[in-house]
Amino acid sequence: MSERESELMRKIGNSAVAKNRGNRRVLLGIGDDAALWSPKQKRPMILTCDWFLEGTHFLPDNHPADAVGWKCLARAVSDIAAMGGEPQCFVLSLAMPMILTGKWLSGFLSGLRRAARTLGCELVGGDTTRRDEVLISVTVIGELSARKALLRSGARPGDAVYVSGRLGEAEWGLRMLRRKSGIAKVAKAAIRKQLYPQPRVELGRWLARKGFASAMMDLSDGLSTDLARLCAASGVGVLIEDDSLPVTSLVARRKARELALHGGDDYELMFTVPRNKEKSLPRRFKGLPLTRIGEITRGGKVLHTCGGKTVPLHAGGWDPFREK
Amino acid sequence: MSERESELMRKIGNSAVAKNRGNRRVLLGIGDDAALWSPKQKRPMILTCDWFLEGTHFLPDNHPADAVGWKCLARAVSDIAAMGGEPQCFVLSLAMPMILTGKWLSGFLSGLRRAARTLGCELVGGDTTRRDEVLISVTVIGELSARKALLRSGARPGDAVYVSGRLGEAEWGLRMLRRKSGIAKVAKAAIRKQLYPQPRVELGRWLARKGFASAMMDLSDGLSTDLARLCAASGVGVLIEDDSLPVTSLVARRKARELALHGGDDYELMFTVPRNKEKSLPRRFKGLPLTRIGEITRGGKVLHTCGGKTVPLHAGGWDPFREK
Repeated sequence: MSERESELMRKIGNSAVAKNRGNRRVLLGIGDDAALWSPKQKRPMILTCDWFLEGTHFLPDNHPADAVGWKCLARAVSDIAAMGGEPQCFVLSLAMPMILTGKWLSGFLSGLRRAARTLGCELVGGDTTRRDEVLISVTVIGELSARKALLRSGARPGDAVYVSGRLGEAEWGLRMLRRKSGIAKVAKAAIRKQLYPQPRVELGRWLARKGFASAMMDLSDGLSTDLARLCAASGVGVLIEDDSLPVTSLVARRKARELALHGGDDYELMFTVPRNKEKSLPRRFKGLPLTRIGEITRGGKVLHTCGGKTVPLHAGGWDPFREK
Repeated sequence: MSERESELMRKIGNSAVAKNRGNRRVLLGIGDDAALWSPKQKRPMILTCDWFLEGTHFLPDNHPADAVGWKCLARAVSDIAAMGGEPQCFVLSLAMPMILTGKWLSGFLSGLRRAARTLGCELVGGDTTRRDEVLISVTVIGELSARKALLRSGARPGDAVYVSGRLGEAEWGLRMLRRKSGIAKVAKAAIRKQLYPQPRVELGRWLARKGFASAMMDLSDGLSTDLARLCAASGVGVLIEDDSLPVTSLVARRKARELALHGGDDYELMFTVPRNKEKSLPRRFKGLPLTRIGEITRGGKVLHTCGGKTVPLHAGGWDPFREK
């Protein structure tokens, strides 16, 4: 019993690589001081890390273990998608209480393995330690297959602003999850979006390869907050048409708009398209709606049309460091 | 004030890259969804991640902020050194209380910057969030310049076991740090080793390039614990001569041996050398002593000679998951 940490890492390694054998680019996986991985020649690598902390990013009573496993990887992969890249491999820092190393850990690893397979991103290394709460940090390595990465800084006045999918459902799903009872049947789709978000890797790569987009980022903290970040990076402003937002039909329209503007955890892509390329952009990508929600403007103002008036759009999404 | 997280990441980025400009391999640093980095052709990459958690890996009352910054990177880089690799860049996951974002954060960043410069490892990305305690996870990307990585699994019966530097001083330094008063002047060197460990990157690369070593790992959790890991990975046993251990002269000999066998945080390298190569191995590498401490044996037993007797060496180093 004196090698519990190594045992735990082995359990994680065995579980996570079981279905991922045969990747020749992983020269050495879990078990040594570090992992060895073979990059493709001449391709820029994409690096991103993401926290996933009990009480901050997930609620132990509401998020099942396999959703924690799925989501901790999916949200980091979403950052790779947002550059137009392909996820390749990841390392996992996991701290947890001894008492969870049985059933909870198995559920967690099952969700993590499913995400790794679905997203084509293999676990190659990690670090574990004991802690009273579950703490997770995931670092994903991706590769750029397009000529250029899609950055936040490329938006220009006149470009149209698009988003993929529907916004606000994951936030509503979270609110439903927190209710102890009385969850409507229609809420199940929203809860699924909260628990098992689908990073838009294929869409991101396609947009980067086709050259449709001038700027791109993923929506993780809420449209109003993330939009302000894209505008700041590009040195531009924006005018959003609230009527055009792809909102959920599961709740009343007014509430749906609020959710779409400020709700977090969407993991959809937001991108800007120069005018001369808009005509060629389809309305859907493999069934996923691509919706025009506004236009980039000169100056730095982030505005939206609300009840016929044009007013400032306050950044009302998730920001852990905002004073409460 | 609604963009506190972005502000914080910017502060970290500005501080950390300030002295690291001009690295052409960093195509995009902090500020977008992810970082872009250009790998060298045909070189395997080395990936490792390491926790550094308040209360588990450092004590807020004993470890000054700049030591936290130095050590969180240094210990992750030590894993790169243990493969015979060169550190290249890193990403930082940092969670902390709002109240520490002033003076403490500046101290932390100053230590982190000094480590990044000294170790040639540039900060390229990160994630920050608010939390009651300071939580850190560092992922380092390295490259292998030698033909082969030095793994834990290459030790063969008959190989000699070597360690660099002196063992046990960092552990003694930690004990001195925890004392409120009465710290001996001679303890300062040990405290320095506890606070600002020096990963043996140059030695690791040299050993890998010269082909001296058959196996290698870094000593982080204590010789007795790490030795058992190397033996398990190689499918061999070991016999350590306690008399030959490079112990500290700062404490009584018996206590010094105990510290050398089980004390953590050394970040020295342990490596095995085939008999036919031992003669060519110098006793020092750039002033750093290389000491023969025992020999690899057949079978899986981890033994040491203690008071003239050969007895099992119990793994008494640090293991967070051991039952207390």
